[in-house]
Amino acid sequence: MIIVMNPHAEQAAVDRVVKEIERMGAQAHLSQGKFRTVIGAVGEEGNIDGSHLASLDGVEKVVPIMKPYKLASREFHEDDSVVEIGGPSVPKVKVGGKHAVSIAGPCAVENEEMLNKIARHVRDGGATVLRGGAFKPRTSPYSFQGHGETALKWMRACGDELGMPICTEVMDTRQVELIERYTDSFQIGARNMQNFDLLREVGKTRKPVLLKRGLAATVKDWLLSAEYILSQGNRGVILCERGIKTFEDSVRYTLDITSIPVAKQWTHLPIIIDPSHAAGKRDLVPAIAMAGLAAGAHGTIIEVHYCPSEAQCDGPQALLPETFKELMGQLRQVAAILGKEFADAAELTSA
Amino acid sequence: MIIVMNPHAEQAAVDRVVKEIERMGAQAHLSQGKFRTVIGAVGEEGNIDGSHLASLDGVEKVVPIMKPYKLASREFHEDDSVVEIGGPSVPKVKVGGKHAVSIAGPCAVENEEMLNKIARHVRDGGATVLRGGAFKPRTSPYSFQGHGETALKWMRACGDELGMPICTEVMDTRQVELIERYTDSFQIGARNMQNFDLLREVGKTRKPVLLKRGLAATVKDWLLSAEYILSQGNRGVILCERGIKTFEDSVRYTLDITSIPVAKQWTHLPIIIDPSHAAGKRDLVPAIAMAGLAAGAHGTIIEVHYCPSEAQCDGPQALLPETFKELMGQLRQVAAILGKEFADAAELTSA
Amino acid sequence: MIIVMNPHAEQAAVDRVVKEIERMGAQAHLSQGKFRTVIGAVGEEGNIDGSHLASLDGVEKVVPIMKPYKLASREFHEDDSVVEIGGPSVPKVKVGGKHAVSIAGPCAVENEEMLNKIARHVRDGGATVLRGGAFKPRTSPYSFQGHGETALKWMRACGDELGMPICTEVMDTRQVELIERYTDSFQIGARNMQNFDLLREVGKTRKPVLLKRGLAATVKDWLLSAEYILSQGNRGVILCERGIKTFEDSVRYTLDITSIPVAKQWTHLPIIIDPSHAAGKRDLVPAIAMAGLAAGAHGTIIEVHYCPSEAQCDGPQALLPETFKELMGQLRQVAAILGKEFADAAELTSA
Amino acid sequence: MIIVMNPHAEQAAVDRVVKEIERMGAQAHLSQGKFRTVIGAVGEEGNIDGSHLASLDGVEKVVPIMKPYKLASREFHEDDSVVEIGGPSVPKVKVGGKHAVSIAGPCAVENEEMLNKIARHVRDGGATVLRGGAFKPRTSPYSFQGHGETALKWMRACGDELGMPICTEVMDTRQVELIERYTDSFQIGARNMQNFDLLREVGKTRKPVLLKRGLAATVKDWLLSAEYILSQGNRGVILCERGIKTFEDSVRYTLDITSIPVAKQWTHLPIIIDPSHAAGKRDLVPAIAMAGLAAGAHGTIIEVHYCPSEAQCDGPQALLPETFKELMGQLRQVAAILGKEFADAAELTSA
Repeated sequence: MIIVMNPHAEQAAVDRVVKEIERMGAQAHLSQGKFRTVIGAVGEEGNIDGSHLASLDGVEKVVPIMKPYKLASREFHEDDSVVEIGGPSVPKVKVGGKHAVSIAGPCAVENEEMLNKIARHVRDGGATVLRGGAFKPRTSPYSFQGHGETALKWMRACGDELGMPICTEVMDTRQVELIERYTDSFQIGARNMQNFDLLREVGKTRKPVLLKRGLAATVKDWLLSAEYILSQGNRGVILCERGIKTFEDSVRYTLDITSIPVAKQWTHLPIIIDPSHAAGKRDLVPAIAMAGLAAGAHGTIIEVHYCPSEAQCDGPQALLPETFKELMGQLRQVAAILGKEFADAAELTSA
Repeated sequence: MIIVMNPHAEQAAVDRVVKEIERMGAQAHLSQGKFRTVIGAVGEEGNIDGSHLASLDGVEKVVPIMKPYKLASREFHEDDSVVEIGGPSVPKVKVGGKHAVSIAGPCAVENEEMLNKIARHVRDGGATVLRGGAFKPRTSPYSFQGHGETALKWMRACGDELGMPICTEVMDTRQVELIERYTDSFQIGARNMQNFDLLREVGKTRKPVLLKRGLAATVKDWLLSAEYILSQGNRGVILCERGIKTFEDSVRYTLDITSIPVAKQWTHLPIIIDPSHAAGKRDLVPAIAMAGLAAGAHGTIIEVHYCPSEAQCDGPQALLPETFKELMGQLRQVAAILGKEFADAAELTSA
Repeated sequence: MIIVMNPHAEQAAVDRVVKEIERMGAQAHLSQGKFRTVIGAVGEEGNIDGSHLASLDGVEKVVPIMKPYKLASREFHEDDSVVEIGGPSVPKVKVGGKHAVSIAGPCAVENEEMLNKIARHVRDGGATVLRGGAFKPRTSPYSFQGHGETALKWMRACGDELGMPICTEVMDTRQVELIERYTDSFQIGARNMQNFDLLREVGKTRKPVLLKRGLAATVKDWLLSAEYILSQGNRGVILCERGIKTFEDSVRYTLDITSIPVAKQWTHLPIIIDPSHAAGKRDLVPAIAMAGLAAGAHGTIIEVHYCPSEAQCDGPQALLPETFKELMGQLRQVAAILGKEFADAAELTSA
Repeated sequence: MIIVMNPHAEQAAVDRVVKEIERMGAQAHLSQGKFRTVIGAVGEEGNIDGSHLASLDGVEKVVPIMKPYKLASREFHEDDSVVEIGGPSVPKVKVGGKHAVSIAGPCAVENEEMLNKIARHVRDGGATVLRGGAFKPRTSPYSFQGHGETALKWMRACGDELGMPICTEVMDTRQVELIERYTDSFQIGARNMQNFDLLREVGKTRKPVLLKRGLAATVKDWLLSAEYILSQGNRGVILCERGIKTFEDSVRYTLDITSIPVAKQWTHLPIIIDPSHAAGKRDLVPAIAMAGLAAGAHGTIIEVHYCPSEAQCDGPQALLPETFKELMGQLRQVAAILGKEFADAAELTSA
């Protein structure tokens, strides 16, 4: 950690900082320039309380040198982690390293028939994990909030029948136990990325967690949230970039494509992208999905909905099944350029 | 709601939109320009599913006209709401309308002695509500997470002794019942502003809720979160602006001063500001607090810490007691210019 | 244009708005809901002064329906534009539609030998247009500002010798004439995207203009700046996405990948990406470049620098020649998936 | 400057960095921790090329310690600068230190009669400097672009008659000489904050420059732009905060209130705020203006327009004269709390 003193900091202030650094079990290295004194605190950075040092008189700023997360870091685990989604009743699907994953399904699980229909479509299109919302986070209290446990049962049955592991969102610590009984993997939504109690609870389970990036979270914040889960013993964290809030108003969120190579430098965890929620518009989904794969992502999570002419269609961002299938064909080609491969749905099930 | 069609939308697409609007119980008004067709959907906007309309073929965009919240809106409740914090064992403090509030105290409750010392300091400085964290949200799983129920007991005892209602953060639905037993008001942190289950749970209590604005939330999103609480029957919502994420890196968050007059136009709920968390630096707190009051806020929540020369001081953003007292003097003058008044701590207690 | 009135707007205010709309030569369509009156202004939107309407009493907001640009829009020119860079002394390189371009070279032109060396490297790697800065925009007045006309001469000679059209930045209206004499295409930097006098001056020339997106510009703002150039008669505008300012601090700018499909829906102009300036770090450039092509961009502009072991190397974002060549191989593959093709440097020259 | 090496950086890489630092005339201080090597470069920071160091093998990041601007810094000039606007034909108005300024007038100068009318109104309301646009930056090429020199003549005559110095925007290096002949002070708009040639040109004049903050500029970027002007010998720079681009869409720009105390810590230059352009809506202007003064700004620049019932009114953000006058009364009270004072228009003229 580097402590930069104010230009006019007095010797007493410098001495105080040095004393505090030593009290924390670290060594202080002074570097006195013409205008400023800079102090290096050398030691186990986790033991040095930077916020305390920043509060001392005469300190201008404190610059951390080490990353604040450990288990999530490349230093801790050099090779790419490969996370497996799937359980006793369904095949296991690998995510990470050279394994790309295609997770797809409806946004919310509206009813059983629709779910089954869409699930067959996405499986046919090349998806190997089925997504679907049983509990839905909605910005308005007056919007549909999901079918809860009933929807979980439909999903479990559907996944088992088709040989697809399932993935569903958890929003409340009180739901963890219930959802764990049904699902093969949890999803933590962007708005809950810093719901620390929830992170801890899913960290205590042994099912993989798809951790969406918060709308105002830096890559560093995101990895700290992953660390919460990892620190409880659950090593199955998959990062999911789904866009951040910016001033651009032509889309709902700005997908931060650069977060993919940045995250891959900093962490061994797999990272996928969610083009559907970022774009908010069906037309933009294929271009964003392609970009994500090309930037090095380990797969996609995409909303798909079959929309018959007389029925209600579920939202402007869901791809039609035929578009999804076509897109998967292109995504496989991009993956191949980069030495990655999507699991084949047919092979998985027969295995 | 206004539905704007694509330039090349066919008649069949227009007809479909009209049919869907009518199916929702609203009336469709067509306006055919040279280049585009625009359709107005007139009726109870809550019944019109804009997201469904946006997903139809040929629709370019959907522009909502009505605000998506009701109970929080000025249309629903024209005059400023006045929320009272306080209970049977302590005086009630009013917030809203012409009543400004000063909430102050330590960030985390470290130990009982420190809490009591700081509480006396802030009361002496002019604060009438005591803040303090028993459960702490921390971006790193390795940071101090708070003393929990023990800290709640210290706070209750301290508030009762000094005649100050207390305010403390709730982070998890499972904590609501426990915290409700001790506190006079809940605080929902910025990272939980869209933790919808938590909003519902505090909405079921009858204690006021200080709802901090999320780091990536628009004013509209914020009022929708307030609506979650209000819709459960709890009318004691106090908004708290504490900064948003922007590219500016000289401070932690950019306090959005304009959100104050904007929120006051849209809602009857009181709004206060938290200059401490926005700035992240002690030196900047007074200027931001002054700005907030001058922009029309109904008060401030400020971190204060007494930092004896041999002890550990709690973070770079806490004001020293003497600075807090001086600031309160200036805040009273600004409040007076705008016809507002801070409650007087001495009078409250004697009441 | 849609004018939404306040909930309590009086009839006189509504009448005034209607009168003003008619005064502007448009028709007013009233739609009176239970809570609000909404007025549609139907007519040539360019003649309707929305800002004036927004200033009238009782008006809550004004929602434009038409895009504010014309010549840049898909409505005006439905097919992709193909822009040609090159002149009498060098081959012409096509950009747009199915033609992808690779522009590469050093950031600043430091000296003639270095320029020639790098130019050969990038040509060998597959670039067909040579970039290089003669006049450099620098955030600090104390940084190197470029070699000016001397550098332009070196570039012209180098381009002619290698059969590569050149591209260089113009920063000041007073430089347009000088630079036009040497260059095959202008570059307008992000910080000058709304330097309207400069846009007009390059619009008066007949050389293509690479228009970088401003750091705080929406896609709409960007197309309005393109419109400035187009409206002067210069139809050779190439858009260049190079990142926007966001809160994420692991890179200099956040490349907005979604701007590519959005811009392609709204405009016929070609769009390329600049991964070098967005990332600010060499390691991230290939992933971002790949993402840009996969999202549908018509090419890249990349900084390359040969960095001999004893010499000064020019900035952390320049790719080494061998990395550039390898990247070009992968970019060609991505382009092929999407039906695009990069020009071949060898063929161009022999032509 | 601090150079942080990668965890796996080899000794040769460290040696190379040390060698380069010494080549630049600085000293290298090594600090070898358990995980990383950190190198301090001690010497005149202006001579150390951080960007070059960042490009070397094994370097993770470079952290500058010194501010990159000199003449603008508090280190260079400890006391508040006081800038005087005004010339031989009009009184001089002081800005900075304890002197607050009120600049007001129309957005664009539409015609002479309107200008004179508004000028009298703002003078009567308490403004002492008259603003007005002769050359207008417009995002659309089809909008009104200003009356140019004719408007400058009207402004000069009006300012002379009323005893008010004038302020007008310059957009192009070619206009500097012309505008300098008429005006008492230049305004550089937000979109030109990094138009470096323009900064240099106004830096060569001896008339004060109101430098608006760019929409995507950090406070540091802003001070670097001020440095461009100062470095040419013009010491009359006045900073003007007018809002930055953020995701919040209820206003045009988010006024960054915290930039005021931050700028005041870093620089001796006066800083004022422009609430009109930030808000974009008349109703929000007073609250923002009050906040700016309360945060420590040295004044305001506000658009005012007299809007007779039958005439065209110029934009939704202009205050009516009576509101302006009332606001000035409140601003004087806020200024007094902080020990500042607005010049009195009447006294100035009689002087």
